[in-house]
Amino acid sequence: MDLSELIRDLPDGAVLTDPDLTERYRQDWARDPAAVEPLAVVRATSTADVQTVLRWATTHRVPVVPRGAGSGLSGGATAVAGGIVLTTERMRAITVDPVTRTAVAQPGLLNAEVKRAVAAHGLWYPPDPSSFEICSIGGNAATNAGGLCCVKYGVTSDYVLGMEVVLADGSAVRLGGPRLKDSAGLSLTKLFVGSEGTLGVITELTLRLIPAQPAQSTVVASFATLDAASAAILAITRELRPAMLEFMDRVAINAVEDALNMGLDRNAEALLIARSDAPGSYAGREAELMLQACTEAGAVEAFHTDDAAEGEAFTAARRFAIPAVERLGDLLLEDVGVPLPKLPDLVTGIARIARHRNVTVSVIAHAGDGNTHPLIVYNPADAAQTERAQSAFGEIMELAIALGGTITGEHGVGRLKKPWLPDQLGPEVMALTERIKRALDPDGILNPGAIL
Amino acid sequence: MDLSELIRDLPDGAVLTDPDLTERYRQDWARDPAAVEPLAVVRATSTADVQTVLRWATTHRVPVVPRGAGSGLSGGATAVAGGIVLTTERMRAITVDPVTRTAVAQPGLLNAEVKRAVAAHGLWYPPDPSSFEICSIGGNAATNAGGLCCVKYGVTSDYVLGMEVVLADGSAVRLGGPRLKDSAGLSLTKLFVGSEGTLGVITELTLRLIPAQPAQSTVVASFATLDAASAAILAITRELRPAMLEFMDRVAINAVEDALNMGLDRNAEALLIARSDAPGSYAGREAELMLQACTEAGAVEAFHTDDAAEGEAFTAARRFAIPAVERLGDLLLEDVGVPLPKLPDLVTGIARIARHRNVTVSVIAHAGDGNTHPLIVYNPADAAQTERAQSAFGEIMELAIALGGTITGEHGVGRLKKPWLPDQLGPEVMALTERIKRALDPDGILNPGAIL
Ligand SMILES: Cc1cc2nc3c(=O)[nH]c(=O)nc-3n(C[C@H](O)[C@H](O)[C@H](O)COP(=O)(O)OP(=O)(O)OC[C@H]3O[C@@H](n4cnc5c(N)ncnc54)[C@H](O)[C@@H]3O)c2cc1C
Ligand SMILES: Cc1cc2nc3c(=O)[nH]c(=O)nc-3n(C[C@H](O)[C@H](O)[C@H](O)COP(=O)(O)OP(=O)(O)OC[C@H]3O[C@@H](n4cnc5c(N)ncnc54)[C@H](O)[C@@H]3O)c2cc1C
Repeated sequence: MDLSELIRDLPDGAVLTDPDLTERYRQDWARDPAAVEPLAVVRATSTADVQTVLRWATTHRVPVVPRGAGSGLSGGATAVAGGIVLTTERMRAITVDPVTRTAVAQPGLLNAEVKRAVAAHGLWYPPDPSSFEICSIGGNAATNAGGLCCVKYGVTSDYVLGMEVVLADGSAVRLGGPRLKDSAGLSLTKLFVGSEGTLGVITELTLRLIPAQPAQSTVVASFATLDAASAAILAITRELRPAMLEFMDRVAINAVEDALNMGLDRNAEALLIARSDAPGSYAGREAELMLQACTEAGAVEAFHTDDAAEGEAFTAARRFAIPAVERLGDLLLEDVGVPLPKLPDLVTGIARIARHRNVTVSVIAHAGDGNTHPLIVYNPADAAQTERAQSAFGEIMELAIALGGTITGEHGVGRLKKPWLPDQLGPEVMALTERIKRALDPDGILNPGAIL
Repeated sequence: MDLSELIRDLPDGAVLTDPDLTERYRQDWARDPAAVEPLAVVRATSTADVQTVLRWATTHRVPVVPRGAGSGLSGGATAVAGGIVLTTERMRAITVDPVTRTAVAQPGLLNAEVKRAVAAHGLWYPPDPSSFEICSIGGNAATNAGGLCCVKYGVTSDYVLGMEVVLADGSAVRLGGPRLKDSAGLSLTKLFVGSEGTLGVITELTLRLIPAQPAQSTVVASFATLDAASAAILAITRELRPAMLEFMDRVAINAVEDALNMGLDRNAEALLIARSDAPGSYAGREAELMLQACTEAGAVEAFHTDDAAEGEAFTAARRFAIPAVERLGDLLLEDVGVPLPKLPDLVTGIARIARHRNVTVSVIAHAGDGNTHPLIVYNPADAAQTERAQSAFGEIMELAIALGGTITGEHGVGRLKKPWLPDQLGPEVMALTERIKRALDPDGILNPGAIL
């Protein structure tokens, strides 16, 4: 494929073809083994650059894989044969309007950078994936990222008021904007959120902000049984609105403790970390009620703290769970979710699958919204174990579907969960999805192989 | 058109053709003068009935106008020539799952009935259009309805987790479901929310609920100038998260006072009603801060009350504003929204248009989210005045667009605001909208003439 025209029409240095340089852009965090060396990587600096790439790609029928920071966990940004990886990492501007409480951000900015920029105005952008320091805001919108505070504050989609998006043919459209309510026309903004790069490339986002989060009170509770922890979760969500309600199982507790040495109870079967950010002194009171729910459910040890640093240490420990468990081996990362009352069935079913397939599966969860991350640990050098891990990977998704749940609560389908999507959605919804995909990307050049 | 096949395949009495009976279904609350007598009205009792109608309509290329309770304000449910009006008013089942905090409701249930059903379980469905006692939950989803508490709690879209929808060809699909987070596939649920019956007929909704709203504290403040009221609005939204922040101008104050006689200040240029529902005693404290903001902005009179009945009386007064102003004459109802800092420009611009066109325009607003309802009063018997009112109607939308705003914050485009939609969205977004419409409704039988 002749790239000279593309190189000519883009800024100097935007197009990388040296395999040493493109290697970094070949895979996302899921390390999809199917990833190949791309035709080229383009580091766009502007919407115009993105348009140039897509016009060229449409003319030459070249696939384009949009890429933010590559922290994705489902192979959504896996490079494809003969394709361009189009990264937004150089598109990093942001402006904040403190009166409307909105920010206009380019997609390449990291989530943490958005949070910092708006915090300077006393404002808060809530969605907080654990990966907030290594994922881009554009990737967050493309995957409809969740996180820890979403149990109270909702997901990325709830904070995207508008966007600029470049379509497959290279045209740029503006959807929505800095209006807190807008019913003019179809909900196109929301359609592009969570579309995983299959419908267009997001080149700008208008984000809704809220006043800075009040001080938080944190509850930490350990349990001798999974059932007791489940009971506590349901008791809390039934009556209160925790600003966070996270779960780690024994394997995760021990992996985190190995790494951070903070005195977690290594014998506990489950640890819950819950926070309240109710205003004023009411946070402490809400934390007391959550503590009481844990104690009544049979917590072995439970306490609450209003100390910000101490609360943050436990939250950071939970955020560190994936990297910590990763030290035990390679991971197949799940993201299954179920309606809350089915959470105990999901957790016990996962344990059954792990025993049956003889693999270690550590479960961590955004428990308050029924979204779990079973982490399947395996050694890729052990072919038989790898196969068993892969079987478990599929079985856990099938279990979630059987429980009325979803194969992905927040990471997206990407390439790695695609085979299970029809089982969840059914043939009619798959057909509907294809109709929309064809209407927006008739040549199928946008992230081919993801979702569909 | 021969209806015998349709009548045969539907329950007894489902098909109405007697003009005396169909008259009720000819118009919605906007009283679109273009409404004609429909071919027939079908009162569906089930998803299967809706499928029967759409299969028949596709075969015979007959337009179908979906209808909830007919409280729409943009002519979205206006009957069309040779078409079926398909009402969901008989589809009224609801089940509540208090553990997952979700409800599964049929579309014909009124918003108020949904609220009552979930309140019986200690839960709350927040979206609260002023019309909550006369609008259906299906209509709310189809228009992405807003309301008074949306400034803090978001709009209908934020509470729809899933739905069943019947497509133009009569196939029924299930989207999303009772999972609090779900990233499996495209965000189709959100696309159907706000689609105003142009993409499918919603036959079931899965709604997200939250714990019952805490007790509220209410602030009432009157202002001698619009500028002072605007300053108070911006000061409040900048620092606090009011659970309601509503505005009425002098005309509305007087119209409400004429009707309800509750001692409102007839000389005030503006009245603000704000509420806090922060937990525990903090609601009172947040109300104090809002009161202070009003006083500092120059309120003539301002007070706050923790008395539930008193607070509700003022809220009810605000909700009654549209019917109250309607006593002054027929109304052309606007729904324009702007980014918050532009609110003063919008309000003064509307006054200028009213003077120039010599018509009365009363402005009420969900001020906290920049969404206003200018009500243009006119006498349809006065042809010249009607023409001036219609000019003002268009000019107010053009003003909103010029201020970076929207022609509709929550009522939808329907038929009456359609001519202004391209001015707001631009040709590319209109083309994108048409591509999606064609992909989902290739024969154009679903609510033709609405939005597009
Ligand atoms: C340790 C760890 C913890 C994590 N915790 C969470 C968590 O709590 N919650 C959560 O939701 N996720 C979590 N993730 C997953 C990941 O961080 C999110 O999916 C994130 O949103 C991806 O952003 P990114 O910029 O890295 O996107 P990438 O990985 O680069 O891309 C992700 C997908 O989005 C598409 N894409 C990226 N940018 C654009 C664009 N501008 N326009 C169109 N499409 C685009 C890509 O094509 C791909 O399909 C975690 C990941 C790690 C490694
Ligand atoms: C006094 C008054 C105050 C109001 N206040 C507010 C307010 O504060 N906020 C607000 O948002 N609105 C308000 N409205 C407007 C109106 O109540 C809302 O738009 C409401 O959502 C319409 O619901 P409905 O059941 O009456 O729908 P309808 O009027 O019957 O229909 C509205 C639209 O939805 C479509 N539709 C209806 N049901 C379905 C279905 N099941 N599937 C597919 N499409 C369907 C119709 O085709 C039409 O396009 C107010 C109206 C009045 C009269």
